[in-house]
Amino acid sequence: MNILYIMFDQLRFDYLSCAGHPTLNTPHMDRIAAQGVRFTNAYTQSPVCGAARMSAYTGRYVSSHGAQWNGYPLRVGELTLGDHLRANGVACWLVGKTHMKADAEGMARLGLSPDSVIGARQSECGFDAWCRDDGLWAVGPAGPYDTKRSPYNEYLKSKGYSGDNPWADFANAGCDGDDIASGWFMKNADKPANIDEPDSETPWLTSEAIKFMDATKGPWCAHISYIKPHWPYIVPAPYHDMYSKDDIPPVTRDAAELTDPHPVYEAFTAGRVGQAFARDDVREKVIPAYMGLIKQCDDQMGRLLRYLQETGRDKDTMIIITSDHGDYLGDHWMGEKDLFHAPSVKVPLIIFDPRTQADATRGTTCDELIETIDVTATIIDAAGGEVPDHIVEGRSLLPYLNGKPHPNPRNYVISEYDYSCHGACAKLNVANKDARLFMVATHDWKLVHCEGGLPPMLFDLKNDPNEFKDLGRCPDHAAVRAEMYGMLQDWSLRMSQRVTISDATIKQRRESGADTGVVLGVFDEKELPKSMTQTYRGKVPTRP
Amino acid sequence: MNILYIMFDQLRFDYLSCAGHPTLNTPHMDRIAAQGVRFTNAYTQSPVCGAARMSAYTGRYVSSHGAQWNGYPLRVGELTLGDHLRANGVACWLVGKTHMKADAEGMARLGLSPDSVIGARQSECGFDAWCRDDGLWAVGPAGPYDTKRSPYNEYLKSKGYSGDNPWADFANAGCDGDDIASGWFMKNADKPANIDEPDSETPWLTSEAIKFMDATKGPWCAHISYIKPHWPYIVPAPYHDMYSKDDIPPVTRDAAELTDPHPVYEAFTAGRVGQAFARDDVREKVIPAYMGLIKQCDDQMGRLLRYLQETGRDKDTMIIITSDHGDYLGDHWMGEKDLFHAPSVKVPLIIFDPRTQADATRGTTCDELIETIDVTATIIDAAGGEVPDHIVEGRSLLPYLNGKPHPNPRNYVISEYDYSCHGACAKLNVANKDARLFMVATHDWKLVHCEGGLPPMLFDLKNDPNEFKDLGRCPDHAAVRAEMYGMLQDWSLRMSQRVTISDATIKQRRESGADTGVVLGVFDEKELPKSMTQTYRGKVPTRP
Repeated sequence: MNILYIMFDQLRFDYLSCAGHPTLNTPHMDRIAAQGVRFTNAYTQSPVCGAARMSAYTGRYVSSHGAQWNGYPLRVGELTLGDHLRANGVACWLVGKTHMKADAEGMARLGLSPDSVIGARQSECGFDAWCRDDGLWAVGPAGPYDTKRSPYNEYLKSKGYSGDNPWADFANAGCDGDDIASGWFMKNADKPANIDEPDSETPWLTSEAIKFMDATKGPWCAHISYIKPHWPYIVPAPYHDMYSKDDIPPVTRDAAELTDPHPVYEAFTAGRVGQAFARDDVREKVIPAYMGLIKQCDDQMGRLLRYLQETGRDKDTMIIITSDHGDYLGDHWMGEKDLFHAPSVKVPLIIFDPRTQADATRGTTCDELIETIDVTATIIDAAGGEVPDHIVEGRSLLPYLNGKPHPNPRNYVISEYDYSCHGACAKLNVANKDARLFMVATHDWKLVHCEGGLPPMLFDLKNDPNEFKDLGRCPDHAAVRAEMYGMLQDWSLRMSQRVTISDATIKQRRESGADTGVVLGVFDEKELPKSMTQTYRGKVPTRP
Repeated sequence: MNILYIMFDQLRFDYLSCAGHPTLNTPHMDRIAAQGVRFTNAYTQSPVCGAARMSAYTGRYVSSHGAQWNGYPLRVGELTLGDHLRANGVACWLVGKTHMKADAEGMARLGLSPDSVIGARQSECGFDAWCRDDGLWAVGPAGPYDTKRSPYNEYLKSKGYSGDNPWADFANAGCDGDDIASGWFMKNADKPANIDEPDSETPWLTSEAIKFMDATKGPWCAHISYIKPHWPYIVPAPYHDMYSKDDIPPVTRDAAELTDPHPVYEAFTAGRVGQAFARDDVREKVIPAYMGLIKQCDDQMGRLLRYLQETGRDKDTMIIITSDHGDYLGDHWMGEKDLFHAPSVKVPLIIFDPRTQADATRGTTCDELIETIDVTATIIDAAGGEVPDHIVEGRSLLPYLNGKPHPNPRNYVISEYDYSCHGACAKLNVANKDARLFMVATHDWKLVHCEGGLPPMLFDLKNDPNEFKDLGRCPDHAAVRAEMYGMLQDWSLRMSQRVTISDATIKQRRESGADTGVVLGVFDEKELPKSMTQTYRGKVPTRP
């Protein structure tokens, strides 16, 4: 069996028709859900690309792998999905985005060259790269945002698109009369991108995925990682005007959220992004484009499914569809992600397992609490490996797929956010090391602990499903907070760094009682069998 | 300035005359204390050799570096004292024991050969090895306890001591008539080791240290790491009969400790070592030998001091004297170490800084709460480096040495113990990952948290300085336990793995506002200065 680990970027959990979106129709993803299981309570390990993805690729919590924000390097030697799969004879390929920054200092310290096989995998988060494209080819006066080579830009040039950076001039821009209508300005979100739709990013990456499958013998796991529907919010025809402001679901926000707000929440809503998405004209421009981008993604899923059917690969390919985090889109007076309200911290998760043992659950939903790292464990398990639980902190979802009771279900989920690089850190005068947030959530409650002496946030998910009322400082809820803090304490003392010795090895070592000659607490030889003391007997040798 | 980082093994904090031992006279260590500062509340990071030493050599907590017990490999790439010192132009040498086990799997995965310079440092915990000798050359039916080459055994052979393992037959054995009196049997602790005193381990290592200093240009830090007074408890003449049972301080134990004992404490006292050291005949044989071993260590310190004076190096050499953990010696019905009573978890710590800024504190004691990892930070600081506090969790002690108020004193100390390889783990039916203990202590209270659903231990250090009464389950002390658990929570959420990016880099990144072309939350170009949007303007290019 091969595994397609498909990740979209910034795709909200509730922007699929199978997840109940009222106006957005995504028949192809719905079809995968109808043949597999859709998880309704899947949480990202961190509501930001880099940290969430490093968790997805290591199966470890953000504060376990330490690459806690975009561009914070993943330490050299940190074990990845690729290491675990290859150890089990399964290749692990990348087609698209990882947002991974290599630990160049660490690699230099260990003498690893990025152009060696080992060094390349260290640089690509353990993947063998079919193609790596992180999708943000912005260039400013201070130079480019991303200095890597862009296979997508190379593709556009090969198709005759002009200039050094056709991504910026065509894929990410429309026409405003004779002028470029840049996708960076949200006023342009309703304009068609200045590109033939098959040449835009999402179809291009799908083509690369198909080329990869044509060219590659299994067994493999391929991470098909789309940059979209992530901003910039602009999409080519016909998707640019498929949806209008009338198709936008009602915004989820309440004036009360802004009265006596938590300082961290206030700092984020006060930023430029929050202020922009509080404006209805922004939402009415952006959300239809965002929906168009998702519709295009869904059509490309249709193309991928057709390819699998035509090649018969639909019988032996596991399909996982998820996202690295969501998008506030103006809900809670926020844009982007960063915090832990549902639109940001929850992710879509659909898994199709072609094997017969999964027949019992096809077309069902699973409401259990799930984390991104559980998908990593699921892939290792599905590929026939044993999940190395002294390293991987995720829990395989196969029991849920097979309709079996889970031996180790989650009683709570954790998500983390490091805002040391965000203006809020300075604004709140919090030390870099303290600019960290920890979410612990159950089905009923969501607590956000803030380091740096700040109060927590608390939401009553049962009675306030929209998370409008922060009870973090409410005297009546001290007991609930204490209970949630108990879970956080339990989690924070977890075993996370004893990664060099497995439980099996420890057990074997403990039980073997192999006699290597060290005997402790022995007064004389009578206390032990002769076999254990024979090397300490005999005639005394003479000194020189 | 050079730095002698001298570590003894299993040396109790209170077995020096300067620390108040009633019958053991250690004039040379006392002299160093008289010229420097003696820390009276220094705690090991873990009461077991391997874990404590990996913390000493990385400056990180046991659960941060993950090498949590003897022989649990230190993960490849983990930064060490040697890395931090060499980055600052100071060499870092090893003379003696580290108990470090290399991460052979990790090194193979990264293609590191142990015989390369980089690989050798990875294998030796970041040290350049002048000589490595861990000092336990036991051999049993299952093979040797330690498969490394023993420079000490090579030395004995060169001196004409016979056999494959003269350590076992001479250094670690006496004469029982014509028979070998093995040091492994405590009944032999009063016999003189069958070796000329200058050839025994402690003088041999001192000679190696002197040879090293003769041969090596500075600046350097040298870890002079003695195996003694660690068991086996046997010492050559004249030290073997310098002390008698009349010189043994009264045992610190109380029958009440064994009534309704904490399950973990009970499991350890019930083991062979605990049972043995509960016997007075064992204590009366072992402790005089232990004292003789310490007396020999002190005489060798005298030799080292003489060498420094004769070479004038006493003026420019910092001297640190400490131990990796203590030894119960029957106190609390325990032998060895493993748990957190003072005789086990406290360590001696004496620091002599030859520089004038330390003149103010010579001959004083410091009662502040100190951890082993603080010594690591002190060495980096003393060597003129900046302590990389995104990696090193210790806090430099130089302010105390210079008589200045400490900018960041400890309100509590942490020590950890992983007993997954100990019989108690199976006996208590605790999962390997839960076989972990966490001590948090202030001047007044000591709490031991036990994973795996076991109750905590609690000691009132003010009113019960001997730690006889475990209040961990006492209903009257719920408030104290809650307060101590608050400190544990604070510690357990510490920043420990964000090791690839410094605070300075994060701050600079946050504040630079370098315009790389990514603009978020911008409706139209009017919202930004032209400089930030110019690359998004211009005539729209024509599609191919």
